[in-house]
Amino acid sequence: MRIVKRVESMQRLALAWKRSGVRVGFVPTMGYLHAGHLSLVRRARRLVGTNGKVVVSIYVNPTQFGPREDFSAYPRDLTGDARACRRAGVDLVFAPPDAEMYPKGTSPFSTFVTEESLSQGMEGAARPTHFRGVTTVVTKLFHLVLPDVAVFGAKDYQQAAVVGKMVRDLNFPVRVVVAKTCRETDGLAMSSRNKYLTGDLRRQATILWRSIGEARRALRKPGRAISALRLKTRLKAFIEKQPAARLDYLEFFDPDLLVPVSKVEPGTQMALAVFLGKTRLIDNARL
Amino acid sequence: MRIVKRVESMQRLALAWKRSGVRVGFVPTMGYLHAGHLSLVRRARRLVGTNGKVVVSIYVNPTQFGPREDFSAYPRDLTGDARACRRAGVDLVFAPPDAEMYPKGTSPFSTFVTEESLSQGMEGAARPTHFRGVTTVVTKLFHLVLPDVAVFGAKDYQQAAVVGKMVRDLNFPVRVVVAKTCRETDGLAMSSRNKYLTGDLRRQATILWRSIGEARRALRKPGRAISALRLKTRLKAFIEKQPAARLDYLEFFDPDLLVPVSKVEPGTQMALAVFLGKTRLIDNARL
Repeated sequence: MRIVKRVESMQRLALAWKRSGVRVGFVPTMGYLHAGHLSLVRRARRLVGTNGKVVVSIYVNPTQFGPREDFSAYPRDLTGDARACRRAGVDLVFAPPDAEMYPKGTSPFSTFVTEESLSQGMEGAARPTHFRGVTTVVTKLFHLVLPDVAVFGAKDYQQAAVVGKMVRDLNFPVRVVVAKTCRETDGLAMSSRNKYLTGDLRRQATILWRSIGEARRALRKPGRAISALRLKTRLKAFIEKQPAARLDYLEFFDPDLLVPVSKVEPGTQMALAVFLGKTRLIDNARL
Repeated sequence: MRIVKRVESMQRLALAWKRSGVRVGFVPTMGYLHAGHLSLVRRARRLVGTNGKVVVSIYVNPTQFGPREDFSAYPRDLTGDARACRRAGVDLVFAPPDAEMYPKGTSPFSTFVTEESLSQGMEGAARPTHFRGVTTVVTKLFHLVLPDVAVFGAKDYQQAAVVGKMVRDLNFPVRVVVAKTCRETDGLAMSSRNKYLTGDLRRQATILWRSIGEARRALRKPGRAISALRLKTRLKAFIEKQPAARLDYLEFFDPDLLVPVSKVEPGTQMALAVFLGKTRLIDNARL
């Protein structure tokens, strides 16, 4: 397995693969890999076959963090990540330093990709420049790795939707595949940020998954459609019974257009963000 | 020579070329081709060789026109353009309809590429959404044609600079080449918009090139550096002596950073936009 740090070397390799007809599967990550990431790697391998190449990028992208967010504290472990990738059969890890991705100098970085529809609510409302950072860095990574297929995790539901829309709108020659969220045995969605959950916070963090269960149970009762507003109020109270939990947002929406719905029914998508102390977790599911 | 109208067919062909190692040279145009465009085609051919493919796109991109600009009036002649391309040895003309480039439907187009530094002055100030339209459509075209090299004309100096910056910032695997402006024998820069110059306007239109000559003559005089402000005032008066001419902007700037300079000297870039009646023409040169 190769570890590449320079953008030029990455692109040169990718262009050589293209010329020789090698299929490339790509898993962009911010590192600190867990079983969820490795399931994306396995999916990428199945998609490109044994003759294809699987590339994992490990890059904590500064432009998708807000000024008060956890960019510097975000967990990093390139040595452990490289070991996990090697075991998982990854062909190449791309781990560029910031100076390679956003060079300074007389003409500093000044080009951005923005998606202006699906990115507006939820994470986009809570984290104003987040998706601009995501779509910009994914564009750069796609141009450097030149994948045939890229695999994203369903835990970041809105992110996958925004990237998919960007790919269609801008005609990237890349297929986007969204793979199922991996969960701990108690239902907590796997996330590198779970590392922050010390002491009792880890137990309280199951409230995200349990609130999805509550919504599903509410839908099982026969009768009239359920008001989104009412269900939100009820779930907010349910969530905030946990002493360290504060709801950031909870939304019911159309799974394709990401437009909020006023009536919740089977097939509606639910997504939520919850602070547990200082740690912000997200989760989502089809109801 | 092939004429392709569907984005899917274009990309499928481009991907097949990539897999077989064929080099692709690309000339993006808005059609109504003149000798200037054809010089870009010859340049593209020299760059990719006889075994390479030269692609010309012909697309009057609606998103780079302002609401009061000449989008509907912009001259179009696909039959004549196809003939000229065939004679010039072009391999493929890509001429998509608007519905292919910006499909409507339940999830209308919502992704944009913006360059926020070099695009701010001059054309960017005079035409607020112009460069966003340009960088977005060039991104789409690059993803559909997958060129190794793209050739732009120097007449649109700022456009070439903005596209070059976008390509570097977003790591497009494309080399951008800027080819010299072609001029009529009296110095008028070739442009599809010259078609609008009826009657005496054609003669008056040489004022752009003549004002560049005036600036060069001013620099030839020995002595102190020339104040940009003073030279602008003088050239504005010189230009507006033409009865139909109204100066839109005239700028002296650093040719790489596009930052205005206060002192004009050899090596300074000059650019200007002039209305001749309702027709807006641009030109530029290194002094």
